[in-house]
Formats: sequence, C-alpha cells, structure tokens
Amino acid sequence: MKIELASSYGFCFGVKRAIKIAESAGNAATIGPLIHNNEEINRLAINFNVKTLNGINELSDERKAIIRTHGITKDDLAKLKQSSIDVIDATCPFVTKPQQICERMSEEGYDIVIFGDENHPEVKGVKSYSYGRVFVVLEENELDDIKLKQKVAVVSQTTRKVEKFMQIVNYLMLRVKEVRVFNTICNATFENQEAAKELSKRADIMIIIGGKNSSNTKQLYLISKNFCKDSYLIESEDEIDKEWFKNKELCGISAGASTPDWIIQKVVNKIEKI
Amino acid sequence: MKIELASSYGFCFGVKRAIKIAESAGNAATIGPLIHNNEEINRLAINFNVKTLNGINELSDERKAIIRTHGITKDDLAKLKQSSIDVIDATCPFVTKPQQICERMSEEGYDIVIFGDENHPEVKGVKSYSYGRVFVVLEENELDDIKLKQKVAVVSQTTRKVEKFMQIVNYLMLRVKEVRVFNTICNATFENQEAAKELSKRADIMIIIGGKNSSNTKQLYLISKNFCKDSYLIESEDEIDKEWFKNKELCGISAGASTPDWIIQKVVNKIEKI
Repeated sequence: MKIELASSYGFCFGVKRAIKIAESAGNAATIGPLIHNNEEINRLAINFNVKTLNGINELSDERKAIIRTHGITKDDLAKLKQSSIDVIDATCPFVTKPQQICERMSEEGYDIVIFGDENHPEVKGVKSYSYGRVFVVLEENELDDIKLKQKVAVVSQTTRKVEKFMQIVNYLMLRVKEVRVFNTICNATFENQEAAKELSKRADIMIIIGGKNSSNTKQLYLISKNFCKDSYLIESEDEIDKEWFKNKELCGISAGASTPDWIIQKVVNKIEKI
Repeated sequence: MKIELASSYGFCFGVKRAIKIAESAGNAATIGPLIHNNEEINRLAINFNVKTLNGINELSDERKAIIRTHGITKDDLAKLKQSSIDVIDATCPFVTKPQQICERMSEEGYDIVIFGDENHPEVKGVKSYSYGRVFVVLEENELDDIKLKQKVAVVSQTTRKVEKFMQIVNYLMLRVKEVRVFNTICNATFENQEAAKELSKRADIMIIIGGKNSSNTKQLYLISKNFCKDSYLIESEDEIDKEWFKNKELCGISAGASTPDWIIQKVVNKIEKI
C-alpha cells in the first residue's frame, strides 16, 4: 500500500506562532487550551510548565497568562489587563481580524452575522466584540425568522468551509440591501481543505489526524468522507485499526492545523508497518 | 388553446412614474428613449409632443429636457443643469440608488464592480458616478487578469438575474478580503422573472412582449427559453406567426417592464383569434 500526505496539511501560521510564544514565555497559564491538540498541550505542560486553565476565575498565583490562539472574550481580556498579571497574547492574527471587524461594524450600525459554531471559543470571542445585534449561525435558515436591518455585515469563523459561507451570503443578498462580506476564512484552512479534497478523490482510505474538538480537523474529515467513504479521524496512532487497510492501495493522510508533525510522523510510521 | 398571463409582468414602478412625468410635462425632449419601448415612445410623441433625442448635443430650442428612466451620465446631467433648460428628472429611483452608491464607494476608496452590460445607458450612467477604478462585467472571469484592491464594492444593473450576481459575488469573496454587496436588482424585475419561470415550466409556448433593446425583456425571454423551448420575443402583435401555436395547449404570456398594457392586450386579442 502506498502512503501519500496531502500537498498541504498540519500546523498553520497561528498555531506555530502560539507554540513559539508559549515556549519562550514558559511558567505560565493559558486561558483555555492554547491550541486544540491535547498531545501538544501536554508537551508544553511537561517541558515548559505551561498549564491550561478553564477560565480566568481559575487564576491564582500565576504571573503570566497566555491568550489562546482562538482568542478570549473582550470582557475577560479587559479583566486580565486590569489585574497585575502579565498578559501574553497568542491570539492568531487571523482571529484578531474578525474581532476588530465585529467591533467596527457594530459601531457603524450594522447587524452582524457570524458564520460559525456559537459554542466554539473563537466564535464566543469574536461575538463579544460586537456592541449591537449579532447572530451566530451555521445554516442560513436560522435567520428566517429574524427581522434584519437593511445593512448586514458578515464574518466567518476562520476554519469554516467557504462554500457554505457563500450560501449564507447569497441568502442575505436576497434579504437585505447591503451585505458587507468579510472573508475571514483562513487561507491555511482553505489550502488544507483543497489538498484533502484532491487527495481523497484518489485515495482508497483517508486518515485525518487531529483533535476531535478541532473545528478545522472535523471539516477536513467531512470533506474526505465526501469523496472517500473509508475516512477516519484519529487523534493518535493508538486508534489505528489494521482492518481498515485491507485491500487498500492508496492511503491518503491529512492533519488539522493544530496537529504537530511529531504526531503525524508516528501515525505514518505505524501505517508503514501494516 | 388556453392563454395564461404570468402572475407578474409588464410595467414597473419606474416606468409608470416616468410616463406620468412625461405626460404632465408635455412639449419636451428626452435624452435618449424615455423607456425601452418604441410603441409607447411614439404614443408620447404624438399625444404629448415629447420627442426623443440621441444626446444633449441635439438640444436646440427645447425648453424642457426629461431624463430617461435609465438615467444619464453625471457629466451630461451637470451640463444640462448649467444650461437654461428646465431639467425634469424621470430617472427611476432604483437607478439613482446605484449611481449614489458608486459615488460614495469610490469616495471611500473601494474598487467598484458593476454587474451589467457596459453598452446599456443605465450602466453608462451608473459608471459615470465613480471617481476611481470601476469595472463593468457580465462574467466573473472578466476580472481574472485585474489586480483588485482588497476592498471591492459591487452593484448590479437593475434588470439582471440575481443568480449570476451571486456568482460574481462568490468569485470576489475568494479574491478579496472585503466585498461590499449592494443588491440593486429591482424587485419588479425579479418578480417578473420568477413569474415567467413558473409559467414557462408549464406552458407549451411562451410569448414575451417587449422592446428588443430592453435588457429586462431579453432576460425574461432567456428564462422562458430555458424551460420552454418554444419561446418567442416580440415587440407587437404583427410579429405573431400562426404556425407557432399548432398542437399547443397552454400559451404563457409575459412582458418586459417597459411594455404598456395596451400592447399586451393587442397580442392577447390576436392569439385568442388563432
């Protein structure tokens, strides 16, 4: 069986940057997991004493707080900055962008639509920057019963699929006079998605490696599954089942934006031995 | 054979308004045809002495100039206003809108994309309101070789199909960070189009009545043709050919936004006699 890695996969700019920041800070706490990858979080805890808290209320004697790649809410950030703790911002610049847009657009009187998962920390953060009305949706029909203003600004969670974003924009074009579209979907996500799509069309089996709470990893899995029914989402090599590979000729591999290379390598090594 | 009129067809708000304005002005000249319907233009000339000039350079001793529904260029309007002539503006308010948007968006530093036909007087007028860069396209790939700014504002000729407008917006979403979409497609056009679509799915033959230089009439014809291969575009009852109706059970009829009821009635009368 041949193994082929997607032409683009794994760590994005924002994740690489956040890990570097965490490593050089050391002895710090992150508010929520720095990135959506448990193995990497453990590595940072063990090697650099960077621990993960669930929220700012868990802070006690820490001297440094690192803001996760997904950002935190405006209120939490303000509280941290008012406290005596050192705030080290590892928010991905591609996430800071929609936060700023939300703030500016609500100042300018737009209704705001965020295409994303309202339970995702990135979306919670972005949403918190809006002063006015803001609607978080995954499907356009969630807006059916809402009387929208005639001017609506739209942003997307950075890790969403652009096709669905377009559907939401098209829906809004029919409903309101002005739709101000900010394509805040991250290129890295897009590139990983396109590469996974291309590979999954040819592969007999697809292995997607990444955190099961990672939005972009789940998207990669869904895209693969669409073209290659034998697609599997795993967090580490331990989940691999030999049975999956029977009679398969080409095994495609991709990984989410927060999956470190060392985990990918372990998976490849294990598959090579099958 | 049964004859059925589309649930929405013919004169739109802007055309009704312009005819009323021209009738009450009387003894005037319009700069370009007031509306895209020769028969109605003739009626206004004969009954109200409203003549049609090709451009402002043809004005001589007229005391009143009527601006056509499609609007004229900003320069021409300025010249008219500077002259001693009375300027009576019959520009459709739905056309004034994209003119204002173009002006404002170019002031705010956006590249402007107009979805429309660059030879259509409405589009020429709208385009003339932009100070900066402006691109008129019918197909998104016409923008392929243009290095666009990261902020683009988009308007549409009022009589275009919204599906194609969406395609252009979707294309732009992939190319630039901010797409500011103003859906300037006129509802009347949209309603006539939806009604023609619905009827043409059921009809054995479709007759579309309107000016052959009328953008919205051509759109109606193309939509009909898509669902009913025996679709015909005519300007008056004289063009009707009995042969068309052989073995047909349902004849659908629609008419462009500048087709007066009296022309539609003549067509219906003639078909009824077949």
